[in-house]
Amino acid sequence: MKLYYAPGACSLADHIALCETELPFDTEQVDLRQKRTASGEDFVAINPKGYVPALQLDDGEVLTENIAILSYIADRGDLLEPRNTTGHWRVLEALAYISTEIHKSFKPFFMPGATDADKANAREFLLKRLGYLDEKLEGHEFLVGDTFSVADCYLFVMLYWARAKAELTLPQRLSAYVEALAERPSVVKAMTAEGLR
Amino acid sequence: MKLYYAPGACSLADHIALCETELPFDTEQVDLRQKRTASGEDFVAINPKGYVPALQLDDGEVLTENIAILSYIADRGDLLEPRNTTGHWRVLEALAYISTEIHKSFKPFFMPGATDADKANAREFLLKRLGYLDEKLEGHEFLVGDTFSVADCYLFVMLYWARAKAELTLPQRLSAYVEALAERPSVVKAMTAEGLR
Repeated sequence: MKLYYAPGACSLADHIALCETELPFDTEQVDLRQKRTASGEDFVAINPKGYVPALQLDDGEVLTENIAILSYIADRGDLLEPRNTTGHWRVLEALAYISTEIHKSFKPFFMPGATDADKANAREFLLKRLGYLDEKLEGHEFLVGDTFSVADCYLFVMLYWARAKAELTLPQRLSAYVEALAERPSVVKAMTAEGLR
Repeated sequence: MKLYYAPGACSLADHIALCETELPFDTEQVDLRQKRTASGEDFVAINPKGYVPALQLDDGEVLTENIAILSYIADRGDLLEPRNTTGHWRVLEALAYISTEIHKSFKPFFMPGATDADKANAREFLLKRLGYLDEKLEGHEFLVGDTFSVADCYLFVMLYWARAKAELTLPQRLSAYVEALAERPSVVKAMTAEGLR
């Protein structure tokens, strides 16, 4: 497998997930402005949507969309989901919530034309949506059940953005959660590889 | 199983998917302003997020988020995904794209304070993101492989919104696609049950 990523982009979630498994994988950095990979390939020919993450599978097919890629890594890695009847669905539910309610709300922090009012609205919305997860973490080390899962990989990146891009002060449980995850070997490894620490 | 829905909301996708399977299911309408179900229950007690869809499973647990619910119905219904090695992931990839790139872009058409400029920007973005799917439909009856899947259920609702809420003129392939789907028995059944035709 080969992960196409941009440093600190949402592809960091997949990078962490891959580091968490025993699966062999390569990575290749993408220049998202030029739409070129580090080895000079046209990235639009690899992923016509032009964004990361994209995961080239061992048979050459390219899978896109973070929810699908994280779910694929969880399945292949065979360790990133709680092993009970609803665990798989609870992880998918968490990935969908993080993607649609949180990830998409960072848009004003990445758009050149966004106004201060857009950013203030986004901060308010983000704090509300993150508040729901903060409550869910009461008494729990991880987001779903008591097992580290791909949902934690994704949420870690969103909390990293919340601080670095949106300059948010995280509520208490989420703050402790992200600081504990930052020391996890897979997180250290992926962030170091992307030049983020 | 019981599906909590609001007429014409994105829960229509799950309603169509359930009608497509042989699975027994009930439905209950939710008043999203009052946060009450038709039988008078407090909907926030059922889904703390307060939005539809929510699917009560046979063991009483409640699953939320459209991607997770559609994927669950596909799994339990045993017929809504292409039966090949990557079919499951391609459906999940399509669900994620529809949810994050298309569904979320309808926001200005549901927000009371949205300006005409917000709506014009959303229309432009939607046409671009729908254009990618229009191209994918070249030579295909359905969105993923040549099998009807839960991705078609979700895309049908988005195209219904594109016409009814955003007043968009759909590109040619998507237009033919949505008109063919509108005659499908599961779509007719779900839309009739929700009072939409």
